[in-house]
Amino acid sequence: MLTDMYQVTMVYAYWKSGHHNDSSVFDMFFRKNPFGGEYTVFAGSEEVVRFVQTFRFKPADIAYLRTVLPTAEPAFFDFLGSLDASEVRMHSLPEGTIAFPRIPCIRVEGPLAVCQLLETTLLNLTNFASLMATNACRFRQAAGDDMTLVEFGLRRAQGPDGAISASRYSYIGGFDATSNLAAAMRHGITPKGTHAHSFVSAFTSFSDLPSRLIDGVDVVERALEVRRRLGFSSASDSELAAFVAYAQAFPDGFLALVDTYDTVNSGIPNFMAVATVLSELGHKPVGIRLDSGDLAYLSKRARSMFVAADARLGGSSALASSAIMASNNINEAVLHSLNDQGHQLDALGVGTHLVTCQMQPALGMVFKLVEIEGKARIKISQDVSKVTIPGAKDAFRLVGKHDIPILDLLVPTSESAPVPGRRVLCHHPFEEKKRVFVTPSKVIPLLVPVWIGARHEAFARAKAEAVAGDSDSDAKDAATATAGAAADAAAAGAATVAPSASGAAAEGAAAPRREGAALGHRVRFPTPTEVRSYVRAQLSILREDHVRPLNPTPYKVSVTAGLYHFIHELWSREVPIAELA
Amino acid sequence: MLTDMYQVTMVYAYWKSGHHNDSSVFDMFFRKNPFGGEYTVFAGSEEVVRFVQTFRFKPADIAYLRTVLPTAEPAFFDFLGSLDASEVRMHSLPEGTIAFPRIPCIRVEGPLAVCQLLETTLLNLTNFASLMATNACRFRQAAGDDMTLVEFGLRRAQGPDGAISASRYSYIGGFDATSNLAAAMRHGITPKGTHAHSFVSAFTSFSDLPSRLIDGVDVVERALEVRRRLGFSSASDSELAAFVAYAQAFPDGFLALVDTYDTVNSGIPNFMAVATVLSELGHKPVGIRLDSGDLAYLSKRARSMFVAADARLGGSSALASSAIMASNNINEAVLHSLNDQGHQLDALGVGTHLVTCQMQPALGMVFKLVEIEGKARIKISQDVSKVTIPGAKDAFRLVGKHDIPILDLLVPTSESAPVPGRRVLCHHPFEEKKRVFVTPSKVIPLLVPVWIGARHEAFARAKAEAVAGDSDSDAKDAATATAGAAADAAAAGAATVAPSASGAAAEGAAAPRREGAALGHRVRFPTPTEVRSYVRAQLSILREDHVRPLNPTPYKVSVTAGLYHFIHELWSREVPIAELA
Repeated sequence: MLTDMYQVTMVYAYWKSGHHNDSSVFDMFFRKNPFGGEYTVFAGSEEVVRFVQTFRFKPADIAYLRTVLPTAEPAFFDFLGSLDASEVRMHSLPEGTIAFPRIPCIRVEGPLAVCQLLETTLLNLTNFASLMATNACRFRQAAGDDMTLVEFGLRRAQGPDGAISASRYSYIGGFDATSNLAAAMRHGITPKGTHAHSFVSAFTSFSDLPSRLIDGVDVVERALEVRRRLGFSSASDSELAAFVAYAQAFPDGFLALVDTYDTVNSGIPNFMAVATVLSELGHKPVGIRLDSGDLAYLSKRARSMFVAADARLGGSSALASSAIMASNNINEAVLHSLNDQGHQLDALGVGTHLVTCQMQPALGMVFKLVEIEGKARIKISQDVSKVTIPGAKDAFRLVGKHDIPILDLLVPTSESAPVPGRRVLCHHPFEEKKRVFVTPSKVIPLLVPVWIGARHEAFARAKAEAVAGDSDSDAKDAATATAGAAADAAAAGAATVAPSASGAAAEGAAAPRREGAALGHRVRFPTPTEVRSYVRAQLSILREDHVRPLNPTPYKVSVTAGLYHFIHELWSREVPIAELA
Repeated sequence: MLTDMYQVTMVYAYWKSGHHNDSSVFDMFFRKNPFGGEYTVFAGSEEVVRFVQTFRFKPADIAYLRTVLPTAEPAFFDFLGSLDASEVRMHSLPEGTIAFPRIPCIRVEGPLAVCQLLETTLLNLTNFASLMATNACRFRQAAGDDMTLVEFGLRRAQGPDGAISASRYSYIGGFDATSNLAAAMRHGITPKGTHAHSFVSAFTSFSDLPSRLIDGVDVVERALEVRRRLGFSSASDSELAAFVAYAQAFPDGFLALVDTYDTVNSGIPNFMAVATVLSELGHKPVGIRLDSGDLAYLSKRARSMFVAADARLGGSSALASSAIMASNNINEAVLHSLNDQGHQLDALGVGTHLVTCQMQPALGMVFKLVEIEGKARIKISQDVSKVTIPGAKDAFRLVGKHDIPILDLLVPTSESAPVPGRRVLCHHPFEEKKRVFVTPSKVIPLLVPVWIGARHEAFARAKAEAVAGDSDSDAKDAATATAGAAADAAAAGAATVAPSASGAAAEGAAAPRREGAALGHRVRFPTPTEVRSYVRAQLSILREDHVRPLNPTPYKVSVTAGLYHFIHELWSREVPIAELA
């Protein structure tokens, strides 16, 4: 039921006109990379497959739909109630694939009614996931490899599972940990967190401490001594009380939020006092967190205070190497600015800008019909960027010397795949003069089967036979190719998996196990950690100018010569010629 | 478990230092209205109360937390597992209240550990809800009262329940319907939708129609005739086939998407042809949907084409009054621009910009400790806008002549409420010179009890007695006031409900029923439709300059003289004085 009303009204009209069972192919793709960049980390396919696997209207849903469509024939609701994804086949980019505009992220094949009904949910499950993974990946690029990045967005995310998705996909995109316990538990991500301002505010004096001891030593007395020795006379005692309470609970995990009263005059001195005592007792204090103010300045100031204090205390306090974490309103631009100014930060907590993708909160993934009953379909628009590329097609990444990807090529499923070492002509899909010969050293098939409905093969074969009796030979060829591909899909799994798709993804696709019970089978999906490594591996081989933050170069997505000419023939056949008078 | 890790680490530190059971008061509020406006529609309180009612860690959660905090004492996990909200009391603005910065939207009172653990979830459930309701309300203001507004955002929302929340809260904010079936079914909102481009693309010729009839008439032949008569020679036949199929399914709900091939030369002519035939057969066609291009121009062009065609057909076709709907990338600025240009639109479908709140995708709701063990707490910041207003307090809307709200006043729970007809001094919380006398004609208490834990009264009384044995008389007074209020809360419900809060909200709060089983009781919440009316009613009485889109005037939020002086005394007591050398 997580779908748009118009899917159901359309399906009713398909059913009424006898087209509900038409063999159809839909492409899901996006037209523009987000955040002013030139790449997108595709994500969400595991959730898509889990949804498809159990797709079905429940009796309560059907009862509700009867009230919504009171004029529809009763038999239609029996039909709706009988639908599932057992006749559907789905190919997808492996989760975490670096994707580009117009590449089908998911290709769905099967009966028109079911494929149409899947549209909205597929878009919902991949749009935000891909946006989020891409956003996190950009934060990681801006922060550099050595920074610990923690996702702090639960409180500002767009709803509870907006938050859980944000945690999952920011981890995939390159974050190290999350503050969100539910997401950490569900996805096996490390949870991180210490304390808030309210913890500090909750203590008013040392008398709020039932005990002043850690390992038998009066920490309050000793910390006050250290604070005096370091020369800080205006630090807050209530803050010190709170820090002592926290250190008593976590003597080996002491990370103090230092900006409740005054970062430089109170928070940092109090941290240094307690950390010094913990060190003396053999514990390893962690560091501080800054949550307001000028983070570049304060991190450098904190570091120099640590170093100065350490020197004053004889150079053995380990203070100098305390971690400095920051967490106030950090976005990609702030990261670049921190880099420009120089900083002493070891870790960042990122919330709002990360999880709501403040810079651009939606990705324009779309789901378009590209073939029906073996006939290619095109969606025309006055705006060329909105014209769809017709027909069922595969996508290949052509890789050149030094393993560097050159471009991605869309190839109709009826044409043969490009071959390493053999020259292939690659056309821009719409601009006549933009074409290039490429001789790839390696060819990576991008679309791999992720869901094969138990009855898809029979559906495709029946369709091919019906069409074979037809006069339209184009359609016949296309349908036969589709049916053939369907029949071989499971066996071909290994061959169609992107070799770069990390060991696990490859293994998963190579050995599609029967996890979907009787309705079909799906591949084993890699773990979030495996997907995360796959993202990093691809980024490291992409040409730097495609992924740089400022004015990146677009990565080429091309079509074969055959597809180029087919697009333009279909276009001129379909578009009515306007008459001006 | 939908909480931040640091809540649990803090609670462990509270437990270790014996403060977990301290009597605490937290305020949830925001500091700045979203979207450059000067008002916010508060929402999410019903979901908050549903969450609080069943708040508890499950054994599996506890098992997971043991692995996350391996150094914590085992007894702590028994304590965690025993927590629920039965000792908590919660006041909230009624859902849909027009709220302003610094007004507590929710006040939570109870044991420190539980209140602290509620923080993140409360923020998550109200931040997006309030943002969304506010956004929808702004769209409604910009669109005017006569426009039908449909939420179309499911595919672009931030995850599945991001979408369901978006539907619910955009309805509350003033939308009329949603495309999202799951949300419609759950919240009783009207679902709306017709068909997509893919439906049009799915038809290639009239031979795709198994029947050409509606009510026994050959619609194709008749529509082609009408099209010729109207002088359109370049319209697409495959599009006409699709429209006929749709009209066959919905002869009385015919709304055609007209931009698949060419809006002016094909889509509109084909719609007019089919609509004319439907009219002739006694059906009532609905209209068209525009999904690309210049919407102001196209809507005017469509209307003039309808009028011209109607004239040509003898003036009885009812074409002229066909509805024109638009749905491409509409945001608030587009609405204002449409108004400026003039348009002929009757309905709008709004997706991405509405549901992701593209203009500002997060509201900065925060949750701050304001009192502990009867002692008021303040959170200081170099940034005055981040300083919290200490102590447990109520909020009142002071209403002047003609029912127009003048300002909102924060009053410590230990002071008496303002009284209609009696002059009261209202201070800006931080600026000495900004103060004003107000003699309200009406006083609306804004915070109403929404959750009263079954054991809250006993908890508050025990705390008051403990504090009474203490020497701090300030604390004693405050705690006694709190306990007194707790004891009377259920009975006082009726008196503390905003009279403007629509009949239903008032009734709900006036009669808090035992819906929360043994752990406590909560008020009956109004339906989304009742909340929607409450929002409209408040907007209609607010001074226009507070709600206008351009350069609105901030609405005043003041404090009593007593609270003003208390804030500043506490501030100078808490802030360490820096030393410059």
